[in-house]
Amino acid sequence: MGLKSGHGCVDTKFMGSANDYEKAGIILVGAPMDLTTSFRPGTRFGPQKIREMSVGLEEYSVYQDCSLANVPYYDCGDLELVPGDIDSCMKSIGEAADQIISDSKFPLFMGGEHTVSVPVVDAFYKKYGEELVIIQMDAHADLRIDYLGFDKSHASAIRLMTGFVPGKNIYQLGIRSGTREEFSHALQHTNLYKYHVLKPLREITAEIGNRPVYVTLDIDVVDPAFANGTGTPEPGGISSGEAIDSILHLSNLNLAGFDIVEVSPPYDASGRTALLAAKIIREVILAAGSQRG
Amino acid sequence: MGLKSGHGCVDTKFMGSANDYEKAGIILVGAPMDLTTSFRPGTRFGPQKIREMSVGLEEYSVYQDCSLANVPYYDCGDLELVPGDIDSCMKSIGEAADQIISDSKFPLFMGGEHTVSVPVVDAFYKKYGEELVIIQMDAHADLRIDYLGFDKSHASAIRLMTGFVPGKNIYQLGIRSGTREEFSHALQHTNLYKYHVLKPLREITAEIGNRPVYVTLDIDVVDPAFANGTGTPEPGGISSGEAIDSILHLSNLNLAGFDIVEVSPPYDASGRTALLAAKIIREVILAAGSQRG
Amino acid sequence: MGLKSGHGCVDTKFMGSANDYEKAGIILVGAPMDLTTSFRPGTRFGPQKIREMSVGLEEYSVYQDCSLANVPYYDCGDLELVPGDIDSCMKSIGEAADQIISDSKFPLFMGGEHTVSVPVVDAFYKKYGEELVIIQMDAHADLRIDYLGFDKSHASAIRLMTGFVPGKNIYQLGIRSGTREEFSHALQHTNLYKYHVLKPLREITAEIGNRPVYVTLDIDVVDPAFANGTGTPEPGGISSGEAIDSILHLSNLNLAGFDIVEVSPPYDASGRTALLAAKIIREVILAAGSQRG
Amino acid sequence: MGLKSGHGCVDTKFMGSANDYEKAGIILVGAPMDLTTSFRPGTRFGPQKIREMSVGLEEYSVYQDCSLANVPYYDCGDLELVPGDIDSCMKSIGEAADQIISDSKFPLFMGGEHTVSVPVVDAFYKKYGEELVIIQMDAHADLRIDYLGFDKSHASAIRLMTGFVPGKNIYQLGIRSGTREEFSHALQHTNLYKYHVLKPLREITAEIGNRPVYVTLDIDVVDPAFANGTGTPEPGGISSGEAIDSILHLSNLNLAGFDIVEVSPPYDASGRTALLAAKIIREVILAAGSQRG
Amino acid sequence: MGLKSGHGCVDTKFMGSANDYEKAGIILVGAPMDLTTSFRPGTRFGPQKIREMSVGLEEYSVYQDCSLANVPYYDCGDLELVPGDIDSCMKSIGEAADQIISDSKFPLFMGGEHTVSVPVVDAFYKKYGEELVIIQMDAHADLRIDYLGFDKSHASAIRLMTGFVPGKNIYQLGIRSGTREEFSHALQHTNLYKYHVLKPLREITAEIGNRPVYVTLDIDVVDPAFANGTGTPEPGGISSGEAIDSILHLSNLNLAGFDIVEVSPPYDASGRTALLAAKIIREVILAAGSQRG
Amino acid sequence: MGLKSGHGCVDTKFMGSANDYEKAGIILVGAPMDLTTSFRPGTRFGPQKIREMSVGLEEYSVYQDCSLANVPYYDCGDLELVPGDIDSCMKSIGEAADQIISDSKFPLFMGGEHTVSVPVVDAFYKKYGEELVIIQMDAHADLRIDYLGFDKSHASAIRLMTGFVPGKNIYQLGIRSGTREEFSHALQHTNLYKYHVLKPLREITAEIGNRPVYVTLDIDVVDPAFANGTGTPEPGGISSGEAIDSILHLSNLNLAGFDIVEVSPPYDASGRTALLAAKIIREVILAAGSQRG
Repeated sequence: MGLKSGHGCVDTKFMGSANDYEKAGIILVGAPMDLTTSFRPGTRFGPQKIREMSVGLEEYSVYQDCSLANVPYYDCGDLELVPGDIDSCMKSIGEAADQIISDSKFPLFMGGEHTVSVPVVDAFYKKYGEELVIIQMDAHADLRIDYLGFDKSHASAIRLMTGFVPGKNIYQLGIRSGTREEFSHALQHTNLYKYHVLKPLREITAEIGNRPVYVTLDIDVVDPAFANGTGTPEPGGISSGEAIDSILHLSNLNLAGFDIVEVSPPYDASGRTALLAAKIIREVILAAGSQRG
Repeated sequence: MGLKSGHGCVDTKFMGSANDYEKAGIILVGAPMDLTTSFRPGTRFGPQKIREMSVGLEEYSVYQDCSLANVPYYDCGDLELVPGDIDSCMKSIGEAADQIISDSKFPLFMGGEHTVSVPVVDAFYKKYGEELVIIQMDAHADLRIDYLGFDKSHASAIRLMTGFVPGKNIYQLGIRSGTREEFSHALQHTNLYKYHVLKPLREITAEIGNRPVYVTLDIDVVDPAFANGTGTPEPGGISSGEAIDSILHLSNLNLAGFDIVEVSPPYDASGRTALLAAKIIREVILAAGSQRG
Repeated sequence: MGLKSGHGCVDTKFMGSANDYEKAGIILVGAPMDLTTSFRPGTRFGPQKIREMSVGLEEYSVYQDCSLANVPYYDCGDLELVPGDIDSCMKSIGEAADQIISDSKFPLFMGGEHTVSVPVVDAFYKKYGEELVIIQMDAHADLRIDYLGFDKSHASAIRLMTGFVPGKNIYQLGIRSGTREEFSHALQHTNLYKYHVLKPLREITAEIGNRPVYVTLDIDVVDPAFANGTGTPEPGGISSGEAIDSILHLSNLNLAGFDIVEVSPPYDASGRTALLAAKIIREVILAAGSQRG
Repeated sequence: MGLKSGHGCVDTKFMGSANDYEKAGIILVGAPMDLTTSFRPGTRFGPQKIREMSVGLEEYSVYQDCSLANVPYYDCGDLELVPGDIDSCMKSIGEAADQIISDSKFPLFMGGEHTVSVPVVDAFYKKYGEELVIIQMDAHADLRIDYLGFDKSHASAIRLMTGFVPGKNIYQLGIRSGTREEFSHALQHTNLYKYHVLKPLREITAEIGNRPVYVTLDIDVVDPAFANGTGTPEPGGISSGEAIDSILHLSNLNLAGFDIVEVSPPYDASGRTALLAAKIIREVILAAGSQRG
Repeated sequence: MGLKSGHGCVDTKFMGSANDYEKAGIILVGAPMDLTTSFRPGTRFGPQKIREMSVGLEEYSVYQDCSLANVPYYDCGDLELVPGDIDSCMKSIGEAADQIISDSKFPLFMGGEHTVSVPVVDAFYKKYGEELVIIQMDAHADLRIDYLGFDKSHASAIRLMTGFVPGKNIYQLGIRSGTREEFSHALQHTNLYKYHVLKPLREITAEIGNRPVYVTLDIDVVDPAFANGTGTPEPGGISSGEAIDSILHLSNLNLAGFDIVEVSPPYDASGRTALLAAKIIREVILAAGSQRG
Repeated sequence: MGLKSGHGCVDTKFMGSANDYEKAGIILVGAPMDLTTSFRPGTRFGPQKIREMSVGLEEYSVYQDCSLANVPYYDCGDLELVPGDIDSCMKSIGEAADQIISDSKFPLFMGGEHTVSVPVVDAFYKKYGEELVIIQMDAHADLRIDYLGFDKSHASAIRLMTGFVPGKNIYQLGIRSGTREEFSHALQHTNLYKYHVLKPLREITAEIGNRPVYVTLDIDVVDPAFANGTGTPEPGGISSGEAIDSILHLSNLNLAGFDIVEVSPPYDASGRTALLAAKIIREVILAAGSQRG
């Protein structure tokens, strides 16, 4: 009966989550790390707000004509991360990624700050090596060598990846902010496309071909009008429509993992940023689910 | 003198309202019904916030080159609706619609939740029968047969209309959310156009011809960036510019009545959602006024 | 391991909840009914916000020198209630109360609007009959015979109880608002104490003796400075300190059940209302737990 | 019928207002002047927010055991004041006060900034001369000779009165902020009581006797915990309870007029400041109504 | 060392400001005048919020491939303006403009309300006479002859300029609101382009040629989705992307001075309006700096 | 002249600050460290908000009958702290404290989180050794040995001090939250007083005598009604009045330094928490200034 089993009671997972890790092919994990933001904190509340807002959406997507009800995925909640201790946080995230990958499942992380992506990409690189392609959708290049002498902040997230992912295997889309040095670094180490996301994404699809792709989406790639709930918004971004279309296009790639980061609920009383994140997650689950059969 | 008569004092009607129901051809009515929302309540505050924000606009529209000062319309305030009692609320709204229609006036309702439209459409159907055309601009199909077994919620507003409006006389524009079952129902009973509003509206204008048209606009058809103050926002919608252009296009149709629903002020500290609603209402009054001569 | 079992992941229950209904003596249930409010809605978000804020408190209470870690209680989440359908909501709440009582456990409900208390008190009255004592802490008498002709609103919550609880077995504390008629009704049917809570509570303790006591606390008994997150605040209330002291005094009574209602998070950006509710719940669990041995 | 007459529709006057100036003995007027604030603006929205929140209160007062339903008073709305033009604003307010006084009615003004009180007191002084007693309840002395060289700001409101009200006929209660010069000025020209309101009010009651009393209450006399919605809050003030008790005590004086100023809704999302103002206004209307028979 | 000199401490100037007026060619000045707004006040907080948000941007612009680090500009803080005294405010602003112009520097004012632009344009007109071109980017025509009889409000800002700038030397771009009379006045005295900014700006570039250009940008030209923090928002405006592109186009003109007005932080909890203003200011400084060599 | 020198322009220091470190006896420093909060972040914005709100207060205190104008103190702005790097932050704070103390000045730090106090107390202990008395006013004991295994969080601030300050030289006042273990630790190592501040402060004054006293005030010692802008509020605290009276009482002690921590502006839209902090700082400056002659 309801009270005993939890059935009949409303829970707080992402809508449509299965109750079982084992049977699910896609695993949703919250990584509320919120430590190194130079400007405005709050991403620690991102994953839970995304779950909360997901209830306002349908499980069925008219875009892909399929439903979460038909895709076995599991929301295993938020990782317990130690406030103030970066190394410990990144270790926990990396271990979670390792396990999901070794279980041959598709990880879908919800940040937290962008640093969250680093140990996940590291876990994927251990599996795929230089086969791995990384696509970043972001307003900022995140290629700083350090920030006030400190080299592990969210402004260095992609720079840290260029340290262990050799070759120009990282695609940076939608970038509209960075230092002069970051853009110089990109010239050598990444493929950087300014301002736009959908158009370059279409262009690179053929060259990527069937290689395994990890996508990291910083919500601030979207204009602050559509996604005001983020720590370092940057005016002049893409619309929510372009963001959704870009996600739908990912079904043309061999998607191996995904994260969405930098949703910071305190700056968005309307909840529309977390809602957009929830809609993106729904479409990623459906796209990945259809690929996995 | 001012204090005695109310002249010289600022009132709280929609800008430019006449003081007299009898001489007005267009009647503005608030229907703050806010009962069945499954997610986030607050539409009960919609009509009053729309009035309050209207003061920030001009009575003159540069789009139509005419002014509210030249159109006799009357804002008769909010209906007094019983909190918690759906049947009583819908009865009161229906009676108000009946009277305005029988007085040969043009009703313009401000919700409240989308359920508000049902008794108004019912009143129009009693007058026009199958001549009546209904145009819905909305993010959601609102065609649910029930919600947790309950069949009178705002998620069923258009489904309730398909129960008494036979034939495919309902046009649904801008729809981007619903269950699989709702889209199946639409195939049989309505004309549903996904994602866009202005383009399909232009396409259907000729086939509608001179038939009387009732328009119901759910503010969530607009993207939450432009209209964050609503209970169930859905990312990926039209811009405020497209919304205004769509309203201006209505002057090509034989407009019989209009409502705007689901404005929920608590989720919009800036007031821009109510302001957009006020601007839409101004343009509808001017368009309807010019048709009525 | 963590991801599979949920261990190691942060959940969203009230802090310190056990994982098992069976072994718990105290059962926490959310009843997010939010239907009949005449003024400002939002209580549907109350239970989840209380859980969220509880994380900011300690499990240990220095007031009672004991800890939730030593009391087996279980948070079974929110009941799934049908939006817009009062009768169905109250039936679901009553059934939950019936089960908890028949399992000889202590129910602790989190509203939701005050109407939530009615089926719970009804369930207790079926067990204890006229032995049952009801203590209401509230700013409002809640004794309206109806509101705009409708007799099931939160303004009638206690009036509905006087319909099935004969004798003056209801104590109303802290009341500072009502109609003339409500105060007349109270003279005949309840024991009403104006403005204060702690002082009259001490006075009535002896006369109540060992009879089973159900306490319903409407958060608006506290002044809006301390509890701004509520739908119908009433200036001139008690402090949070007096509220806590009153709860601590309840350990002198034979407490059978408890509810806390009318916490409405949208009106409190700081979260302190839900936090006060969480602290009160902690103290009630500890007080009830020590009585149950 | 409802739509035509406005009956049956919810209006936006202060609760319980009569429909007729002539028959009313007490006149409520909004004076949304908001021009000279040195710190944070917003008092222009005060009167309308007070009306809006009044709906959340009962017309009956358990404190005085009487109801607005039994007192003929009239809310004539907000004066239309020219933004940016101080002299014109103060002239309009003075004319409204003159008329109400010459009609032998009791004026009750809602600010707006404290400068609003100056022309009203001027109007009373023209009638009563040195018989007139002024009681100010306020956190600030408001005795500045100027602010950056400008002598008509709200920081000079009482200083302006000392210019035309000779003798120590002004009582200042609750004062906890001012410049050294203001306190020196008070020594010569007013009776200033620091920090407290109720205690000094009781002490001066006998010496005031039956002289006509005008009370001006700046909401910031109340601590910002209870009244956060004001432009220049000052920590360390009285509670809402002491404010209400002080108002109730006014029935021991010969009350001739009243104003409540500096309610600034933008700084109070909960609305409790305007609500406290509404409750104070209800009690003043009831107290003044009982004196007028 | 840091504490003594301020080095090492974070200050609150616009990012990258020099420490010295003398060596700077571009001077940033806050003019927090906020007096005549007819609707919602708050622009007095604009300049400081813009500075605060600027910290979230980079000094380097990828759009222009140059950095504030290479342009000597100086933020001299906010002018001290007398609250409530329009004439004194406008005199202070005019004197500041006079000095900067006579020192052959480029003034960049941050309002405050739009009235701020009038004395600055007056100062430029004294230097350049009819050579001067004024470009206004705005939702409103601001050509009112008066507002309630008062002729110095922000709704008359451009009208006041037409009084002393003869010939059609004022270009109005993006206008979508005004009275019928304002549009008539524009026909005679200005060049008014409706709805759009970038397209007409490109069209008029050739005809303006090398004449000195002063640009005044009212942030409400941008749609309230992108710039909600303003007093009189007007739905249906340009995107932040079009605003940025328009600013970048200004490098094709002989830019002499610039202001950005009507940023009102209280209506934008996310800060994105001030952030967009900061980004615009960065681009203007870089564009003007490159012109000045 | 104004623009060049900054004179005539409004700056953003705490009201009444001198322009010179050398001549000042009291030094105000912002330490916006915001790294280890387990619950809700935001204290990094505390110092700047306190400065901003200080403008709403007078420099003159009627409580002490003296003015900041007569006390030479200097606000040297915020320390530049590395986000995410605790050790570096604490080193910077310690160095600032060392310098101020070695210059024989009185340091007044504004946090930031409570961890900020640790290096400051360390600096004082190096000077005074066991002569030093520490008084903590706080809701929480802050005596945790670690938090999730991490020993440098704000929940361990006082525990860290007990590591290097031997003897029971720490007085903890107002404590109403902690774990059982923290209260056990307090029994051995500190003097802990529950719930109240003013009463125990008076009691310990004599026994402290003339020993040098460092006071650390966590704003959450005040009830969240009066100080909602903090990360871990705890209901049931002291009033703002008691806080001010406690600060005034400090003039009876030999005050050597002071800090106020945990002001977190994002949770307080009204700004009253920062305002209370500003008022407390004013009173501390005046009290310390009078002691220093």
